[in-house]
Amino acid sequence: MAKFSVRGVAFDMYGTVVDVGAVAEACKAIAPDPVAFNIQWRAKQLEYSFLLSAMGKYQDFWKVSAQALEYTIQRFGLAASPEQRKELMEAWLQPTPYPEVVAALPRLKAHHPLAILSNGSPKMLRVGLDRAGLRPHFRWVLSADAVKIYKPSPKIYQLVPRAMRLQKQQILFVSSNAFDVLGAKSFGFKVCWINRAGVPLDPLGPRPDLVVKNFDELETAVA
Amino acid sequence: MAKFSVRGVAFDMYGTVVDVGAVAEACKAIAPDPVAFNIQWRAKQLEYSFLLSAMGKYQDFWKVSAQALEYTIQRFGLAASPEQRKELMEAWLQPTPYPEVVAALPRLKAHHPLAILSNGSPKMLRVGLDRAGLRPHFRWVLSADAVKIYKPSPKIYQLVPRAMRLQKQQILFVSSNAFDVLGAKSFGFKVCWINRAGVPLDPLGPRPDLVVKNFDELETAVA
Repeated sequence: MAKFSVRGVAFDMYGTVVDVGAVAEACKAIAPDPVAFNIQWRAKQLEYSFLLSAMGKYQDFWKVSAQALEYTIQRFGLAASPEQRKELMEAWLQPTPYPEVVAALPRLKAHHPLAILSNGSPKMLRVGLDRAGLRPHFRWVLSADAVKIYKPSPKIYQLVPRAMRLQKQQILFVSSNAFDVLGAKSFGFKVCWINRAGVPLDPLGPRPDLVVKNFDELETAVA
Repeated sequence: MAKFSVRGVAFDMYGTVVDVGAVAEACKAIAPDPVAFNIQWRAKQLEYSFLLSAMGKYQDFWKVSAQALEYTIQRFGLAASPEQRKELMEAWLQPTPYPEVVAALPRLKAHHPLAILSNGSPKMLRVGLDRAGLRPHFRWVLSADAVKIYKPSPKIYQLVPRAMRLQKQQILFVSSNAFDVLGAKSFGFKVCWINRAGVPLDPLGPRPDLVVKNFDELETAVA
C-alpha cells in the first residue's frame, strides 16, 4: 500500500462487497430463467440510475430498483403477485457477501479506515450491512442519496474525501463495476478493479491502478 | 396534429430513422453470432455515452463507437484485423432506413419542418443521411457534438427549439429509443415513441404522448 500512499479505502457495495447474483435465488420464485431475469433487472436498475442523473432527476435506489423490477417482469411476460414483488425487493435487503470478503475486511481495517460508497439508499445499505454482519468494519457508509445523483458523477465520489478528511489521491477506491472504476479513476482516486468475471477492461477512460480477482488478492497487493 | 399544436418535428436517427440492426450484417465478417455481437456493441456504445455525460467528459460518437467495438471484440474473444475493424465502423456510415421511412418523410415534410437530433457525430450524420438519400428531407441536422453532452441531457434537446425558433411544447420529438423518449418528455417536448419491437414502456418517468409501431402509424396519427 505504501506505493500508493493510501490512507483510507472506500468500497463499492453491490457486486463488490456483496454478490448481486445472489438475488437470482429470489427470482426463481417467478422466473423460469432466474439468471437471465436477474441480469435484465440489474441492467435496468443501472440504466435508470444513469438516465436519472443525465436528466438531472433523482429517485432513491430502492424506488429505481422497484421500477426496474416492474419493467423486467413485463419484459419477460411474467406474472407476479404483490407479495412476490415484495419478496424480490427484499432480496436486496439480504445481500450475500462474496466468500472471501468476511475474513478479509477485518484485516484490511487493521491498516486503514474503511468506507462504503454506494448508489444504494441509506436503508438498503444499513439493513444489508447489518444482516450481512459487515457493518462494524466500515467507519463510513456513504450513499448517493446525500447528493441526489448517481455514480459515475464526480459529486458522489466527493463524499469520500469529505468524510475521511483526506485528499482524493490518498484514497484507494475498490469496485468490481467497470463503470464505477472509470468514474472513480476519472474523479482522481487511486483505483482497484476487482475483476471477478475476467471481462475485458473498458477502453473508454483511464486505467485502474490495480486489477485483482478478489479481496484476497487485494489484501496481498496492498499489504 | 392539431391536438398537439405541433409546428415542427424532430427525429432521433439510429434505431428510429435508420436500422442499427443492419450493422449486424457487417458483423458477420468476424462474429459467429453477428446479432448478439451487434447488440453488445450497441449496448456498450450507449453505456459509454451515458458514462461520459455523467462524468462531465466528452468524446465524439465516432470515437465512442470505435471504443465500444474494441470492447466487444475482446468480450467475444474474437480476432479482427485493422481492415475488418474499419469495415465494421464504416457500416455506421451506410445506415439502412426502415422500409416505410423513405416514403413517409416527404409526406411528413409537406406539413411541418423536420429535424434530426442525434448523438451521432456531424460526419456520421452527414454521410449517413446523404448515402441513405434522406438528407433533403431535414431542414436541420443537429448533433450532440454542438453541446458536447449526450442524450438524455436536457442540453442536447435544447438544440431543437433553438434551431426551429419554437417553444419546446410546439415540437413533436420522435424516437424508438426508450431512454430518448424519457429524456425528451422530461425536457418538455411532445413525444412520440415508435415501439417497433413491442417492448414494455419504462415506468421510470413521464409517458409519451403517442405510441406507434412505425412511421406509417405516425403519419396517420398526426395527419
